[in-house]
Amino acid sequence: MAPGSTNRKIDKLIHLLVKNATVVVPGPKIASEIGVTRSTVWTWIEKLRSLGVEIRGVPAAGYRLVNIPDLLAPSLVRPELGEPEIGHNILHYFRTESTNDVALKLAAEGAAHGTVVVAEEQTAGRGRLGRAWYSEKSSGIYMSVILRPPLSPAAAPVLTLMAGVAVHQAITSTTGLAVDIRWPNDLLVNRKKVCGILTEMNAELDRLHAVVLGIGINVNHTQMPAELRAIASSLRLEAHRTVSRVQLLVALLRELERHYHLLLKDGNTAITERWAAASTFARGKRVRVVNAAGEMLATTAGLDPSGALRIRRDDGREESLVAGEVVEVKVETASVQRPRPA
Amino acid sequence: MAPGSTNRKIDKLIHLLVKNATVVVPGPKIASEIGVTRSTVWTWIEKLRSLGVEIRGVPAAGYRLVNIPDLLAPSLVRPELGEPEIGHNILHYFRTESTNDVALKLAAEGAAHGTVVVAEEQTAGRGRLGRAWYSEKSSGIYMSVILRPPLSPAAAPVLTLMAGVAVHQAITSTTGLAVDIRWPNDLLVNRKKVCGILTEMNAELDRLHAVVLGIGINVNHTQMPAELRAIASSLRLEAHRTVSRVQLLVALLRELERHYHLLLKDGNTAITERWAAASTFARGKRVRVVNAAGEMLATTAGLDPSGALRIRRDDGREESLVAGEVVEVKVETASVQRPRPA
Repeated sequence: MAPGSTNRKIDKLIHLLVKNATVVVPGPKIASEIGVTRSTVWTWIEKLRSLGVEIRGVPAAGYRLVNIPDLLAPSLVRPELGEPEIGHNILHYFRTESTNDVALKLAAEGAAHGTVVVAEEQTAGRGRLGRAWYSEKSSGIYMSVILRPPLSPAAAPVLTLMAGVAVHQAITSTTGLAVDIRWPNDLLVNRKKVCGILTEMNAELDRLHAVVLGIGINVNHTQMPAELRAIASSLRLEAHRTVSRVQLLVALLRELERHYHLLLKDGNTAITERWAAASTFARGKRVRVVNAAGEMLATTAGLDPSGALRIRRDDGREESLVAGEVVEVKVETASVQRPRPA
Repeated sequence: MAPGSTNRKIDKLIHLLVKNATVVVPGPKIASEIGVTRSTVWTWIEKLRSLGVEIRGVPAAGYRLVNIPDLLAPSLVRPELGEPEIGHNILHYFRTESTNDVALKLAAEGAAHGTVVVAEEQTAGRGRLGRAWYSEKSSGIYMSVILRPPLSPAAAPVLTLMAGVAVHQAITSTTGLAVDIRWPNDLLVNRKKVCGILTEMNAELDRLHAVVLGIGINVNHTQMPAELRAIASSLRLEAHRTVSRVQLLVALLRELERHYHLLLKDGNTAITERWAAASTFARGKRVRVVNAAGEMLATTAGLDPSGALRIRRDDGREESLVAGEVVEVKVETASVQRPRPA
């Protein structure tokens, strides 16, 4: 399941090119340092070029990077993290079906807390409730984190809120955009979705074995597919500039590390309070609630400590939502018709 | 992960021997029908003998079963089940580390609802909370069932109660023993544990992907290991006779099928009522409660519809247990000391 030695060798190639970014590196030197043939080096250079990495080939001399690539390669990300739990081990795929599927299998095989799976492209990216997640090549961050919290399955909702808060912080600090969170875990910019989070778990009744936080962020998409344009966007489309995926991934892994420890140390309210401060959906928002019981209109009334959303129905009854979706409802202003002057 | 073609061929061998139980089957005929060499047939016959199957070898003639073996082989179990969902596909191992581990991996790879994994021996049988489960060769039933219920993770507790009720029915009807259920899912005979259930799940926040019910039953153990003797027993030790494992497994798969559909059709209370009727722990039992919060003494006060156990603390407060363990406490009779005659 883990990316094979090929990916690790391509990561070495990226490392070599970045380390020698100002000079031309001879092909034979690259080949011997990585331990592959010169023609394999050439194949990999072509692969990196297809991912948008600008590499100049100098005849009879070698290869030189034109600029530092914005690939989610461990050699570019890992050195920025210090000695974290989350991201201590990063598995990088150029293309995979779904990073959550990879992470769930790795977790079943015993992968350690904090293992991160990241991909340039997903061919079968998954969203909540069996929906697809649009995963364009080298434009997004498609990542799954394996957590092994000493908690029961009842803690899963607050872990997903924790992920939402971490993404909120990372996007805000990296782009300066105003980011909102729609309960439970959609990140919105200008009311359009730029990030979704899919939380999955392996558990017995009393305790979590592993939680996989799948995080998909639309970063540098220059346009969204027509059918998504009204409801989804990318950071680049909203910020009107390219955003460094490497910088955003580094910020995100740091925020996940920080908020995870905050949750374990200070408990659920440390997360639910931060979530409520970051979300316009936390309180007083008019929403349509869609869940297994059907649809209804309600007004949000804060989070309870378990991470459930309190809602007030129009008949005054309050209840806690533990699952389902909420959609903002435009409040209709009563249009009072003035009597026309006769 | 699934047992290889070898297991399926040994199952064919068992089928051949059982079908021809009254006659001597020539070795070359067996070899050609299964498609292996005569020396392989001989090796497998030896393997079956090591599992307690009595097979007579008649020189220059062939092999004959002395009696129908009590192996959990699909060829012996499957024909008894009709067209069920649970048990439509039975994967039989002579030895595996843990049937739950096998089933969890199969579930992650997409195995269908109702797939059953069963083993003659587990080398690393698991119980709840990371404990080991003693799994002696060909003496117990070590089984895991993959369910894919259209329910949320909140339904996991009642699924485990459902399994307890099914095992209770199967043991009662097969052996006539008086069986008790200790919340949530230990089966007791004469206050000693004869069956444990380990429920594991793969889920997202809103829905279960797969539930694996691991069921371990001590059937024909002639003695329990010294360290377990005070708290655990086998059906044979309590009934003072050998119990057919095949017959018990067939009864169990039928009861699981029946109670699973009962749960989906009639909802949680169809299960919690049956559970409460089968367990002396449901109401009025003095117990020590052990959970993450510590230990306390309490009296049981019924199940709530989610499958949580209601307990009344000594200060009169009631609460619901969703996780943890309860242990029966012997009620101390106040020994009133009579004044001695002077």
